[in-house]
Amino acid sequence: MIKTVETPRPGRPAFLGELFEVLTDRGRRLLGRRGTDTATEAPDLCELGEALLSRRGEASGVAIAQGLLAAFEDAGEEARLAFLQNLGDRFGPDPAAVRTALEAVQRDAGNIEAIEALHEIAEPRRQELFRRLNLAPGGTAALVRMREELLRHLKGNPALRRVDGDFAHLFASWFNRGFLVLRHIDWNTPASILEKIIRYEAVHAIQNWDDLRNRLQPTDRRCYGFFHPQLVDEPLIFVEVALTEEIPDNVAGLLDLDRQPIQAERASTAVFYSISNTQRGLAGVSFGNFLIKQVVEELKAELPNIRTFVTLSPVPGFAAWLARQRQDEMSELIDADQRLAFVLLDEPGWHKDAAKAESLRAPLMAAAATYFLRARDGKGRVVDPVARFHLGNGARLERLNFLGDVSANGLKQSHGLMVNYLYDLGRIEANHEAFAERSAIAASDNVRRALPASNA
Amino acid sequence: MIKTVETPRPGRPAFLGELFEVLTDRGRRLLGRRGTDTATEAPDLCELGEALLSRRGEASGVAIAQGLLAAFEDAGEEARLAFLQNLGDRFGPDPAAVRTALEAVQRDAGNIEAIEALHEIAEPRRQELFRRLNLAPGGTAALVRMREELLRHLKGNPALRRVDGDFAHLFASWFNRGFLVLRHIDWNTPASILEKIIRYEAVHAIQNWDDLRNRLQPTDRRCYGFFHPQLVDEPLIFVEVALTEEIPDNVAGLLDLDRQPIQAERASTAVFYSISNTQRGLAGVSFGNFLIKQVVEELKAELPNIRTFVTLSPVPGFAAWLARQRQDEMSELIDADQRLAFVLLDEPGWHKDAAKAESLRAPLMAAAATYFLRARDGKGRVVDPVARFHLGNGARLERLNFLGDVSANGLKQSHGLMVNYLYDLGRIEANHEAFAERSAIAASDNVRRALPASNA
Amino acid sequence: MIKTVETPRPGRPAFLGELFEVLTDRGRRLLGRRGTDTATEAPDLCELGEALLSRRGEASGVAIAQGLLAAFEDAGEEARLAFLQNLGDRFGPDPAAVRTALEAVQRDAGNIEAIEALHEIAEPRRQELFRRLNLAPGGTAALVRMREELLRHLKGNPALRRVDGDFAHLFASWFNRGFLVLRHIDWNTPASILEKIIRYEAVHAIQNWDDLRNRLQPTDRRCYGFFHPQLVDEPLIFVEVALTEEIPDNVAGLLDLDRQPIQAERASTAVFYSISNTQRGLAGVSFGNFLIKQVVEELKAELPNIRTFVTLSPVPGFAAWLARQRQDEMSELIDADQRLAFVLLDEPGWHKDAAKAESLRAPLMAAAATYFLRARDGKGRVVDPVARFHLGNGARLERLNFLGDVSANGLKQSHGLMVNYLYDLGRIEANHEAFAERSAIAASDNVRRALPASNA
Amino acid sequence: MIKTVETPRPGRPAFLGELFEVLTDRGRRLLGRRGTDTATEAPDLCELGEALLSRRGEASGVAIAQGLLAAFEDAGEEARLAFLQNLGDRFGPDPAAVRTALEAVQRDAGNIEAIEALHEIAEPRRQELFRRLNLAPGGTAALVRMREELLRHLKGNPALRRVDGDFAHLFASWFNRGFLVLRHIDWNTPASILEKIIRYEAVHAIQNWDDLRNRLQPTDRRCYGFFHPQLVDEPLIFVEVALTEEIPDNVAGLLDLDRQPIQAERASTAVFYSISNTQRGLAGVSFGNFLIKQVVEELKAELPNIRTFVTLSPVPGFAAWLARQRQDEMSELIDADQRLAFVLLDEPGWHKDAAKAESLRAPLMAAAATYFLRARDGKGRVVDPVARFHLGNGARLERLNFLGDVSANGLKQSHGLMVNYLYDLGRIEANHEAFAERSAIAASDNVRRALPASNA
Repeated sequence: MIKTVETPRPGRPAFLGELFEVLTDRGRRLLGRRGTDTATEAPDLCELGEALLSRRGEASGVAIAQGLLAAFEDAGEEARLAFLQNLGDRFGPDPAAVRTALEAVQRDAGNIEAIEALHEIAEPRRQELFRRLNLAPGGTAALVRMREELLRHLKGNPALRRVDGDFAHLFASWFNRGFLVLRHIDWNTPASILEKIIRYEAVHAIQNWDDLRNRLQPTDRRCYGFFHPQLVDEPLIFVEVALTEEIPDNVAGLLDLDRQPIQAERASTAVFYSISNTQRGLAGVSFGNFLIKQVVEELKAELPNIRTFVTLSPVPGFAAWLARQRQDEMSELIDADQRLAFVLLDEPGWHKDAAKAESLRAPLMAAAATYFLRARDGKGRVVDPVARFHLGNGARLERLNFLGDVSANGLKQSHGLMVNYLYDLGRIEANHEAFAERSAIAASDNVRRALPASNA
Repeated sequence: MIKTVETPRPGRPAFLGELFEVLTDRGRRLLGRRGTDTATEAPDLCELGEALLSRRGEASGVAIAQGLLAAFEDAGEEARLAFLQNLGDRFGPDPAAVRTALEAVQRDAGNIEAIEALHEIAEPRRQELFRRLNLAPGGTAALVRMREELLRHLKGNPALRRVDGDFAHLFASWFNRGFLVLRHIDWNTPASILEKIIRYEAVHAIQNWDDLRNRLQPTDRRCYGFFHPQLVDEPLIFVEVALTEEIPDNVAGLLDLDRQPIQAERASTAVFYSISNTQRGLAGVSFGNFLIKQVVEELKAELPNIRTFVTLSPVPGFAAWLARQRQDEMSELIDADQRLAFVLLDEPGWHKDAAKAESLRAPLMAAAATYFLRARDGKGRVVDPVARFHLGNGARLERLNFLGDVSANGLKQSHGLMVNYLYDLGRIEANHEAFAERSAIAASDNVRRALPASNA
Repeated sequence: MIKTVETPRPGRPAFLGELFEVLTDRGRRLLGRRGTDTATEAPDLCELGEALLSRRGEASGVAIAQGLLAAFEDAGEEARLAFLQNLGDRFGPDPAAVRTALEAVQRDAGNIEAIEALHEIAEPRRQELFRRLNLAPGGTAALVRMREELLRHLKGNPALRRVDGDFAHLFASWFNRGFLVLRHIDWNTPASILEKIIRYEAVHAIQNWDDLRNRLQPTDRRCYGFFHPQLVDEPLIFVEVALTEEIPDNVAGLLDLDRQPIQAERASTAVFYSISNTQRGLAGVSFGNFLIKQVVEELKAELPNIRTFVTLSPVPGFAAWLARQRQDEMSELIDADQRLAFVLLDEPGWHKDAAKAESLRAPLMAAAATYFLRARDGKGRVVDPVARFHLGNGARLERLNFLGDVSANGLKQSHGLMVNYLYDLGRIEANHEAFAERSAIAASDNVRRALPASNA
Repeated sequence: MIKTVETPRPGRPAFLGELFEVLTDRGRRLLGRRGTDTATEAPDLCELGEALLSRRGEASGVAIAQGLLAAFEDAGEEARLAFLQNLGDRFGPDPAAVRTALEAVQRDAGNIEAIEALHEIAEPRRQELFRRLNLAPGGTAALVRMREELLRHLKGNPALRRVDGDFAHLFASWFNRGFLVLRHIDWNTPASILEKIIRYEAVHAIQNWDDLRNRLQPTDRRCYGFFHPQLVDEPLIFVEVALTEEIPDNVAGLLDLDRQPIQAERASTAVFYSISNTQRGLAGVSFGNFLIKQVVEELKAELPNIRTFVTLSPVPGFAAWLARQRQDEMSELIDADQRLAFVLLDEPGWHKDAAKAESLRAPLMAAAATYFLRARDGKGRVVDPVARFHLGNGARLERLNFLGDVSANGLKQSHGLMVNYLYDLGRIEANHEAFAERSAIAASDNVRRALPASNA
């Protein structure tokens, strides 16, 4: 067998030990004389960064990278923020070099060599710094955490915004779809990974290990995630799938601990009922599109009887949007009858009263159709973020499900509304193009028919 | 267990089949109407490239990337070269956008935002093209092969040189040390990997599977390689190691099929006697430095008795250099006595004649010491490329071995000379710095003493 | 890679499907005409057994074996018991053949061939039946379950006792130590195995997944189990280990969720604080002895600083034994002072009252020493079953721990007493021999000194 | 992940080291005082055997088992044979105990308890000895080798025959089909296993690694083997499979290094062209039957287009049988015309002469049909051993292939004849029963029609 030799684990002991011994006195001084005397002073993070950049492939590269990352995690919140800001201010492009390169371009505007040289020289130095930090064992994970911290301070901080752009640029390259590995997650998966599924599930919280087992072990349940070779135990994104005999219209039935599983071979439909990103530090690097499509292919190969691939999705922006329309008396997106009916929504527990619920059904579904098909946000986009994701992937809005999620959260964010998006591999490309180029929304006739006459 | 779902394998069938079906008519037309009518015309590679760049994360991205890579491999040599040149000419930065960005910088020279925006805009479009091609299954390997082909056409082709620079830039990021996995290669390794060891061994050719087994299976032999998650069965670089009781002075004894192995626990010395890069397409991305150092750490942990880490290395530039000195009557790097003695080198078989060999020993070793310690090439560098690698890593030139390699190749390239470089973890950083900053060469007293008086 | 092809999973679908098709009409009839008509009658288990025995290596062997095992699990409790009894009565040795073989022996009493032939012929036919049932996928597990059921009916049922002997005989062969695999169980172990650790822990119940993690994940905790290739996800036995700086005297500290772990390298002592068998159907096949010794070797290799290997063990028979002594006024194993002191034991909560506890310490420890060193059961054996296990393994009774386990169960079974047994590899063989041959009990001086004068 | 802890490897170092330390003086004496003084005397194998049997589950069991096995392998040929004979003579049933048990049976002939007790007591003591030897690391493999040696001395040695019977009895239990694992062997399989495929191939010798690759790597080739958990790197039996578009009639085409592979999906036929047992020490434990049937199921699941499962098999007994008929002038199995034609067979190179070959075709095929359908050996069995195997499995003799193997060996053993046996899952049970109960041979009409009129 070909055995993988474990790389030295990140962390203090190795760092203070063996790796330290390869450093010269200069290197040791930078790292704060740790290990030699007790009254260590915190190392200067920027000085370490400069040291790392000043050397080429040398022996101490890994040690200094590891030292900087460890020192960053050891530092106080303030010192960490200062370092992040310094990344923006002090580790940008070298101004003098940029000036010279600019002059070369100005002398000969058509000179492609000069332009490309300018591009290279204008690369912020922090990009090379990040690449070198990535040499340290555990470096990738540490950089993802570093960006996660940066994102918390982003608002109104243009220097950080520049740093964030470089993180995003490098992460898009490092976390390229080509480097991700799709894995089936089930009840035989190591507990160390499963506890992360519990922790990261963002759509329908997992209550405990029994709830988790109920989503993984039955024959009609699947879970898949993307993993990256450098973040071994960390799913980057995962999707939970139910195999059913028809398109479900509510989530409680799917999550019921007492339901009777069906044989996977009998299922005609695969339902993506939860998809969760796990790493805030990877914001903007999109995996979901690829994940859903690869899982569709996996399931088609494993279970040829499955012909229908849909989501059962929340509508997180609906209730807030509806409240805005009700408040705005000029809004034409809801009509007077609807306004009248929606007063019932303000009565707690309306959904348990059959008569009240029934009288809300039509106006609410009409408003939902308007929300998806007519409403736009300030940037002219479809309002609902989940809709933007699935429609942008080329899916079709298939069905509106009245009272699909009557949990407290479901009622609060969408008055119980859930929807199904349909992934039809033969149409997703055309849907995508129409959406991207003409903002045309793929929706079933059923959904379109729900539009009120005033908005049809 | 967590099962890895196999990604769709690259190649024709899948491409012509399922993936094709996701494309719109426009996409199908680009890919040459394959699969629909028989008289297919070759797809236009550049047009495919533009199509790939024009879309954002859409359904057909993977299909078009796979289509372009397949079409490239299918195309004739000429068409491939034309595409590579087009990458340089047509897929550079967008001139109009660059112009606008330049004007913004000129308006306010100190504006860091403007400079960074210029950097982004001046990125050659082929970088993004390569990142998108990397989405295809097998994309990384295909891009490495593409660059391998490009390197063959590089001379005198400045457009290709620019393309090569972008390949090198991206590969350095993708093949970052942090993404490599060290693996132990032994007789239990899959044959599909072992045959590549046979094929790629560049220093001491492996004759056949018995020779290979002799380097892997005995208790006193080791082999390690770096692997990348995207090139699963391909070692990127590997090193062969012998565990011995003393520093060896010739290679024949190490490779002898009939030698008696020793118990690994009895060894005091680890000898790196062969290190081979395998992927020409990754030229310039250096792994060797990291590989040797990580193997040193592995062996120290596994076999604490091993204290000495050396190479047994060829001296590929020595014979040619010596010939130049002999030809150049003005050269002061060899003296008159040496010149006289070296006439014997022109006699075939001199090394088998004990008397002749003995009379050559001292002058040849003196010339060798001069070669390493005094000679410099046109760029002022140490002449020998292997020496530059190990000295650059911080190793010390430990010993000159007269008649260390009496194979035809060994006699031809270095008159049989081999050397040992010593890796002393406690010194490599200092050695490296001295070499990098002052071109100071770390060498043992023994080597220094071999210098002729005239060059000492 | 060498890929393991999954064997067909046990269970209905495959059985009714493909395997059924290989059967002839006769075979199908035996299996109850399943799959052909709806009014299936339950197959006759004994007839199936005879059918399985009557054939040699034939195509339908596996199908019939699988059919019989499935039919057994489908059958009602009564039918199952009837079959087990039939195994004793109808599947014994063949009487006619035995008679003939006996006569041959009687003709020539010294004829070794005749005796060995008699041995072969007198083998109960059910042994061969079990071997053939073991051909079915999942057969081993099904037979273990079958014996588990049998054990519940054993009392006063001599036919079953004979069947049980054959199970025990075959299982000892199939679950030979040579076929077991030691595995490290940790927080990266599949959840499907971990839930069995929770379920089977027999000594200190695991409350939930957090409690489990607390026993597996910290650096100073270990868990090992023996697995058999045929019962993939089932640990047969497992031991939980704590790495400590000294021999612990109570279990609460070990299990404390809030304790601070130590670095494994700092530990001097490995404490086996729980060892649990999991398969009642494997009763009498002993693994514990081998498990402890192999774990000792593993830990010595991994952590050379660990020199002391002890248990922290319950004393499940102590309280009952002490009650008998107190009831038996003639018993000389406790003296009058002790009797008087022990009245306090009848006061609930005595252990929380420092004064009461202190006044009980000496008499209780004296009684404990007597319990281990002097008391014997009806068969002349050491009374305590846990003591018999460890002393039989060659361990030494090292220390008595007053109030080592103040849980309700600990107080009930042993008035809180716990003990340490020491595994000293250099002494276990001698200890074992002395115990096996002379019932000599290895105990530390400390324990011996605790004996009351009257029993010393 | 659940990590398997490596069991201590068998062999000298561990044995002389750690395990030795657990022994008492008595144990050490038995093992020949190894490791203490230099003039070690060889340990007495029988005495070690008695020692191993005399103890119950004790600390030194593994050490003594390992010691005995090591001492056996160290001993000279003579000493080993002596030990094997002693196993027969001295390690049979205990005579005194047998006598007592016999008397009990005689007192009450119908007493089932007494008979079963007699069975247990009459078990040769070597069976328990083997079970205990199996405790040693590597014990199973050592016992298989021990029997391999025994088989070489079997002839005319009744004591050894008894020992062999016990080996066979235990091995049938230990190597039960339920404990075997089917694995796919391909070009990704570790070299350490592949070299055994080269070594053990018994039907069509593998010339070198290129030949091996040609049988494993192409898309239309498969190889499967059974492995046992205790003999990790040793396939017990393996079968080589070619996927083809029709039933092949000669082997040279299958093994041709230059042939063009077909896509596996296009194949309609799977051809088992070589099946090899590897362990002589497991003679009599049959795997082939199960292997073929499981591979048929594997292939059906993977490649539903494959409908025909046949062998391409040698006929190793044909030439010798034909020579006997020709010599026996009274034989009615060949007629006068055939006799005349067969004279050509004595001319070397007849098969290269088209005219000669053609004139032999009909008479030879007629004789072949007679050989399979009419001829019987002294025990009334089908003559050909390969035919007995496949017909016994339920296969049908499908086709006779004239000049199917014109290698020197093919001509010598069968005048070039090869045959196909067809595995039709729906018929194998009926075929098997007919063969086992009535010696009825399943053969195609084509084969039957080839019978000469005289034998039809």
